Amino acid sequence: MTGSVDLAPLVAALPAACVIVDPDQMGGYRWDRANDPYAGMPLAVVRATSTRDVQEAVRFAAAHRIAVVPRGAGSGLSGGSSAVDGCLVISTERMRAITVDPASRTAVVEPGLFNAEVKAAAAEHGLWYPPDPSSFEFCSIGGNVATNAGGLCCVKYGVTSDYVLGLTVVLADGTAVELGGPRLKDVAGLSLTKLFIGSEGTLGIITRVVLRLIPAQRPRATLVATFASLDDATRTVLDVTRRMRPSMLEFMDRTSINAVEDLTRMGLDRSAEAMLVIQSDEPAPHAAAEIGQIADICQANHAAEVFSTDDQETGEAFTVARRMAIPAVEKQGSLLLEDVGVPVPELGTLVRGIAAISVAREVTIAVIAHAGDGNTHPLIVFDPMDADQSARAHRAYAEVMELAMALGGTITGEHGVGRLKKAWLPDYLGPDALELNRRIKNALDPLGILNPGAIF
Amino acid sequence: MTGSVDLAPLVAALPAACVIVDPDQMGGYRWDRANDPYAGMPLAVVRATSTRDVQEAVRFAAAHRIAVVPRGAGSGLSGGSSAVDGCLVISTERMRAITVDPASRTAVVEPGLFNAEVKAAAAEHGLWYPPDPSSFEFCSIGGNVATNAGGLCCVKYGVTSDYVLGLTVVLADGTAVELGGPRLKDVAGLSLTKLFIGSEGTLGIITRVVLRLIPAQRPRATLVATFASLDDATRTVLDVTRRMRPSMLEFMDRTSINAVEDLTRMGLDRSAEAMLVIQSDEPAPHAAAEIGQIADICQANHAAEVFSTDDQETGEAFTVARRMAIPAVEKQGSLLLEDVGVPVPELGTLVRGIAAISVAREVTIAVIAHAGDGNTHPLIVFDPMDADQSARAHRAYAEVMELAMALGGTITGEHGVGRLKKAWLPDYLGPDALELNRRIKNALDPLGILNPGAIF
Repeated sequence: MTGSVDLAPLVAALPAACVIVDPDQMGGYRWDRANDPYAGMPLAVVRATSTRDVQEAVRFAAAHRIAVVPRGAGSGLSGGSSAVDGCLVISTERMRAITVDPASRTAVVEPGLFNAEVKAAAAEHGLWYPPDPSSFEFCSIGGNVATNAGGLCCVKYGVTSDYVLGLTVVLADGTAVELGGPRLKDVAGLSLTKLFIGSEGTLGIITRVVLRLIPAQRPRATLVATFASLDDATRTVLDVTRRMRPSMLEFMDRTSINAVEDLTRMGLDRSAEAMLVIQSDEPAPHAAAEIGQIADICQANHAAEVFSTDDQETGEAFTVARRMAIPAVEKQGSLLLEDVGVPVPELGTLVRGIAAISVAREVTIAVIAHAGDGNTHPLIVFDPMDADQSARAHRAYAEVMELAMALGGTITGEHGVGRLKKAWLPDYLGPDALELNRRIKNALDPLGILNPGAIF
Repeated sequence: MTGSVDLAPLVAALPAACVIVDPDQMGGYRWDRANDPYAGMPLAVVRATSTRDVQEAVRFAAAHRIAVVPRGAGSGLSGGSSAVDGCLVISTERMRAITVDPASRTAVVEPGLFNAEVKAAAAEHGLWYPPDPSSFEFCSIGGNVATNAGGLCCVKYGVTSDYVLGLTVVLADGTAVELGGPRLKDVAGLSLTKLFIGSEGTLGIITRVVLRLIPAQRPRATLVATFASLDDATRTVLDVTRRMRPSMLEFMDRTSINAVEDLTRMGLDRSAEAMLVIQSDEPAPHAAAEIGQIADICQANHAAEVFSTDDQETGEAFTVARRMAIPAVEKQGSLLLEDVGVPVPELGTLVRGIAAISVAREVTIAVIAHAGDGNTHPLIVFDPMDADQSARAHRAYAEVMELAMALGGTITGEHGVGRLKKAWLPDYLGPDALELNRRIKNALDPLGILNPGAIF
C-alpha cells in the first residue's frame, strides 16, 4: 500500500530538504537506544522545522492512513521510537529554539533541544531545570516530556511532569492545540497537559513545551557508603528518606560496583553487597551537617565504609562513578536495560530476587537504582550472537518485570512502555485500567495512526 | 421524569440509612460555599460508606440516566457541587479511613477525610502532607483532588497533583478502576491518575487516594513588609522568587490590610498599598539568614516597614492575619470569591486593573494573593439584597476574569471552574482545547450523567 503513496504533495508543502526517502539516510531514524530487532523501514522521514511542518506531515499521514512515529533525539530505551514499516517518522531534532523568561521563571522550548541545553540556557539566568535523566547530554526535552523522564534528582525535585506548565501538541488530525502556559497554578479545564506527558507519541506530537524553572541548585555535599549486607543498605535508604530530603540517593549492587572498579580503579570495595551515593544540597553548612547525620544513619546500619566530602570535585567524582555504571557494565556485552520500580521498602527484596534470576538464567545482571524512589535499572548482559544466551536474557528481562509486579511495583519507572514492554502492560494495569487507556487513545486517535505499537 | 424513579432497589442495595430523600435533610447537600443561586433539588442524597456504595449509586443513576453530583465536604468555591434538579448527590463525607505507611512515605486515604486530618495522621509519623488550601480545616481530600487544590505552601511545595500517586475512581458506568499506587515513579500507561485530578467530578468519582508524604516541615522564619507602592511589592516578589524558594509568599492589598486591621487592631499599616508575608523553612539558622536576605530585597525595593522574626508564635500571628483576610472582608458583605492567576510579573498590573474595576463598578474589591505563584483571590463585596449592586458585583467578577485573560492569566488557579466560571472557559481555552476537553469527557461519560453543568 505504502508503495503507492505519492510523497510529492508532502514535499511541496514543507520547506526544502525536510523529507528524506533514501533508505541509507533513513537508517539512522529506524531505532532508538532500545535497538528494537523488529524496527521497520519508514516510507519517509520528515525532519520538521516548526509546528506547522509537523501539522502538514500529520495531515498527510491522516489523509493516507499512514502510521506516524514521532522521534526526538532517539535516546529512548523502550523502543518508543522504533520505526514501523511504511510509516512517516517525524523527527523534531531541528526544532531547537528556547526562550527563557527569568521574571516568570519559565522557558518556552522546542522539543529537539537537549535536556543539557535547557539546563545551560536556564543557568545563564541563575535558574535551574532539575530533571536529569542519565542521558541528559544527548536526550531531547520533547522525548523527556513524551516519556515523563526521571533521573537522579527526582528523589527531592520530582520528574519531568512536575516542571511542565504547558504544551503545544499536534493531534492525530493535524490540529495544533495549546495547553496550559506560563502560569504556575492553573486548573481551568481538564488536566490535559498532564495527560500528554508520558503518552509516548500515542496521543499527539509535542512541538513546544513551557517549563517551570527554579533558582539554581546549591553546592552539594556527598557521601559514599558501602554495606556488606543489602538489607542494611535498604534500611539506610528508609531511615534517611523518612527524616530528610537528600538531593540524590543512588544505589549500586556488587556487580555494578565491580564493573565500575574494573574500569576506573578508584578503589571501590569489591566485596560490598551495596553502595549508596547520597548528596545534600541544603544551604551550607547544613549540607555537610545533613551528610553527617546520614553518615550516622549508615554507621547505625553497619556500613562497612563511609566517606563524605563537601568538596564539589570529589563529590562529583563519585557521581561520575554512579553515572559510569551503565557504560562500565556495557563493556561486558550487550545490555537489556530494565527500569522496574517498587515501593521503597521492597528494594532489598527486589535486588535479591534479581540476583536469583541472574543465577537461574545464567546471565549477568547488574543493578543500579534511584534508591530513594525505589526505581531500579537492572542491566542484563548478553551476547546477541549467542542465541541461547539471548533467549535466557530475554526470559530474565520478563522475570524481572514479573517480580517487580509481584512486589507491588511497576514495569517502568521512567523509561516508558514503548514497544519492548507493551506485552506486560495488560498484566500490570489490569483489564479495567487498560480499557480506560484504550478509550482515551481511541478518542484522540480514532484512526490509530499515532505511534502504533507503542504502549498499546 | 425523576418523579417516576423507584428508589427502592437503590435503598436495598446500600447499607441502612445511606439514602436521604427528605427535602429538609437534602437542603444541606444542595450547595457548596459558592452558594450557587441556581442549585437544584436532588432526587436523593447517597451518603456512601465505601467504593462499592458509590458503584451501586452510579450504576443506578446510569441505568435511569439520572445526573450524579459528587460531593466532598461542600467547601468548594466554584459551584462544582451545586445540586441539579432530580440528581443523585453522592456524598463521600462518611468515607474517612486513612492508613499511613511511614516506610514507603505514603498514605491511603478515603475521600471524606479533611485535609487537616490527613496532615495530622502524617504528623504522627513525623511526615507531612504539604498542600494547604486556606480551608484545610474543613475541606476534604477528595474535593482537594477533584479540584487540584492549592494553598499557601505551593510556591515551594506544589499543588495537590504533585502529591497524588494513585486513585480509585468509579467511572460513569459504575466500574471502579485503580490507577497508580504507592510507587514514587511510574510511567506505565497513560497518565490517567493525573487526568482525574482536577476533573471536578465530571469524569469519575474518587473513592480512594494514595498520597505521597515528605518529612515534617522545619520551623519557619517569617517576614512581614509593607510597601507604599504596589510596583515595589511586585518587584520584591520577582527578586525573591528568582533567587530563593520561600515556603510562603503571600500578598494583601490595601483593602484587605484595612479589613484585617479593622478586625484585629494588630497595628497594620493602613496606608500601605501592599503587604507581603513571607516565610522560609530552610534549616535553622539559614531560615533566619534567608529572611534577612529577603529583608534586604524589601529594603532595596523601598519597603515602608519590614519586620522579621524566627519566633514561631509571632510568625504564626502574621500568617493568621493573612488567613483572616477572607472572614475580615466578609464582615463587609457577601463575597464573590475570585481565583484568577497571572504570570508573576503581571501581578501589579492585575491588582491595579482590579482597583480600576472596583471604582468603575462601585463595589469594594479586596485582593489577597499567593503572590509567588501569581494566583490571586480578589474578594468582591456586595449586598445580595441590593439587586443593582449584585449586578455590578457580578459584572466586576466577569471583568476580573477578562482582565486576567488579557494579561496571559487563567480564570482559575486553584478553585476550579465548577458552575460559576464555565461561561468563561471557552474564551479561556479557545475552540481547539475546548473540543479536546469535550472529547475526553464524551469518551469517559457518554451519557453525560457525571456532574452535568460543571466545567462544561
